[in-house]
Amino acid sequence: MINIAVLGCGTVGSGVVDVFFKNKESLEKKAGQELDLKYILDVRDFPDSLYADRFVKDFNVILNDDSVSIVVEVIGGLEPAHEYTRACLERGKSVVTSNKELVAQYGAELLDIAHSRHVNYLFEASVGGGIPIIRPLHMCLAANRIEEIAGILNGTTNFILTKMFREGVTFDSALALAQKLGYAERNPADDVEGKDACRKICILASLAFGSHVYPRDVYAEGITRITQEDVAYAAGCGSVIKLIGRAKRGVNGAPITAMVTPAFVSHDSQLGNVDDVFNGILVRGDATGDVVFYGKGAGKYPTASAVVGDVIECAKATDTSPSLRWEKSNGGNVAPREDNVTAMYLRCRSFESNSLEDAVELFGKVKALSRDGKPSNEAAFITPAATEREIDAACKKLEEKGVSILSKIRVLDY
Amino acid sequence: MINIAVLGCGTVGSGVVDVFFKNKESLEKKAGQELDLKYILDVRDFPDSLYADRFVKDFNVILNDDSVSIVVEVIGGLEPAHEYTRACLERGKSVVTSNKELVAQYGAELLDIAHSRHVNYLFEASVGGGIPIIRPLHMCLAANRIEEIAGILNGTTNFILTKMFREGVTFDSALALAQKLGYAERNPADDVEGKDACRKICILASLAFGSHVYPRDVYAEGITRITQEDVAYAAGCGSVIKLIGRAKRGVNGAPITAMVTPAFVSHDSQLGNVDDVFNGILVRGDATGDVVFYGKGAGKYPTASAVVGDVIECAKATDTSPSLRWEKSNGGNVAPREDNVTAMYLRCRSFESNSLEDAVELFGKVKALSRDGKPSNEAAFITPAATEREIDAACKKLEEKGVSILSKIRVLDY
Repeated sequence: MINIAVLGCGTVGSGVVDVFFKNKESLEKKAGQELDLKYILDVRDFPDSLYADRFVKDFNVILNDDSVSIVVEVIGGLEPAHEYTRACLERGKSVVTSNKELVAQYGAELLDIAHSRHVNYLFEASVGGGIPIIRPLHMCLAANRIEEIAGILNGTTNFILTKMFREGVTFDSALALAQKLGYAERNPADDVEGKDACRKICILASLAFGSHVYPRDVYAEGITRITQEDVAYAAGCGSVIKLIGRAKRGVNGAPITAMVTPAFVSHDSQLGNVDDVFNGILVRGDATGDVVFYGKGAGKYPTASAVVGDVIECAKATDTSPSLRWEKSNGGNVAPREDNVTAMYLRCRSFESNSLEDAVELFGKVKALSRDGKPSNEAAFITPAATEREIDAACKKLEEKGVSILSKIRVLDY
Repeated sequence: MINIAVLGCGTVGSGVVDVFFKNKESLEKKAGQELDLKYILDVRDFPDSLYADRFVKDFNVILNDDSVSIVVEVIGGLEPAHEYTRACLERGKSVVTSNKELVAQYGAELLDIAHSRHVNYLFEASVGGGIPIIRPLHMCLAANRIEEIAGILNGTTNFILTKMFREGVTFDSALALAQKLGYAERNPADDVEGKDACRKICILASLAFGSHVYPRDVYAEGITRITQEDVAYAAGCGSVIKLIGRAKRGVNGAPITAMVTPAFVSHDSQLGNVDDVFNGILVRGDATGDVVFYGKGAGKYPTASAVVGDVIECAKATDTSPSLRWEKSNGGNVAPREDNVTAMYLRCRSFESNSLEDAVELFGKVKALSRDGKPSNEAAFITPAATEREIDAACKKLEEKGVSILSKIRVLDY
């Protein structure tokens, strides 16, 4: 008999409780032994819950109960999740989480503690919701050198961008719809400013490249400045705009490139085709080539099922993943944004008749774009690939010529 | 130190040897111990190989060497692969394979032997080449009830169909190109007649639904009869034709539906968007919803990397997957083709002016299709969903009215 405790009974936590009791019999068969969900920790009261007798408010009840060997941390946020996770791991309890903020910030430390205590710290649900990505990345691709990861990692922003493309609405009205449908929170900053996607690419990059990538070192830009004009130009050249988190191995041990930005991607590509609240994650390995994982990246039951899958893993064996770790780092493992090499879409105003020629001179051979109803003083084009340092400098020169740069979006070839 | 032997040095086998020695250091780090590839079994001579001293021709040298604990079977085909695999497992050696024919035919038996000897029988490379699918299906989706699996499981036929759609060429000329490029074998029957895809859907269905699905019980239809006219009708209604292997859980414990057939799927769907030699596999779980795995389904290095990933798994722990098994069956676990409920595309000749009305009467409300250059005596339409028994009967009546049915392709809504 294995006893489990769930910390936090919010959306994901209550989903975990539901999935556990609904599938208890088959889960026990898969785990090879009896399972019980002994405690649910929450500060609130749930008098009407079927499982009211399992609720506790004092974390120490769980920590000090040696019969509890698996703890599910679905509180979210850094504290007290961090403190509770540390304490559980140090007491020899395996911990399973969907808390991307915690893993992105303290993953290396918590995995070290888990390793030293011969228990598991598993976090499949922290990236891609119900899409299996952490374990395939870690295990199935063990024989690959991962060169690059690029993904649509946030369903809320993908829903908003999909609406903007399909229906031509503004960012604000698409956001309002997402909030109405429950896809976006009342304070949507973490999603629309790219912070959520940033945490997820940090976790994937840390795992793929072996050294901790901290959110503070990763340039993250959201989608709040994407306009209907940008959408029209992108559609006009067979592209869509997606919020892409990506991480790329540096050449010969150089620092990795990691960032979260909106980007033009071809409509027909494997990522361009990921719409609505879905996520898609592309992993490029030296032997496998491109592998893409697609599915619902969030939601109560997809996320809960990923958590429960990890619980089964813990029930079957602790200490099964000694290689599921990465080293601490001082942040020097991520190259500065300015070193990134990219093609760039630029939309400008107050262009004189000869200004596109000026742009050609500044950027090299640009590709001019068009849209219906383009004012005569607007121009949009895609630059050839260059470092962002070079592009920034050329943009500055353009502005010195009296040109306003209205939009600046990276162009990727996934 | 763990010693490994590779049985068979063909395309996949030589890829395994290459990947092993190229990545030996990182593989040892992941496995947590030293690894050596002690033997390579092949009937041929490889005097110029870098590893010539490791080649043996007598299987018993490997079988009787107790220092060899992991055997990679990449011979292919049923015999002697079956005999060798049995013998190795019975001697307590873990076996890793890419041999889909063997797993599809003898999986339940071989997994039983592996279980009784506390060793692994792993076959990630048998489906989807380098795409992680067996382990995610088995482990990450442990907390899901799998309802349905549908996939483009054969890269050769997908390449041929993609060429037919993009360039309007015939099946024969697309096949000739695939052969010229090395994507199709000189005898392409296993691919183009759906046998290869059938073995793969049998493995996925056995794993997902827990009882062995044998290839002989699964209706498999290839792509040899797909014409340029069918391609034109499909394109005209926003569809593509893909060779889809699928398996669906029966309602309330009824037998599963499993078959391999060409099918109309929407061009914009996650499967419709999988082109060229790529594979795509959709898994529908009760909690996760649809999850799709995409990548190169074949090829020397993608397949070899999946094999080597399984070798690492064996090196880390034997007996880690007691739940990676399914029960033997007598074949009653698969419903007859006639019970399958589907919409059907039909293309007919010698249609009189009122024949579409006859068709409406026979099939219910059909959707008429058109194409450029349609002869006046040709008609094509999609029937409403019905059992194949009902559709067969209606087709027979249509033929009795003097109508020839030229094409009959299932229409799916993935």
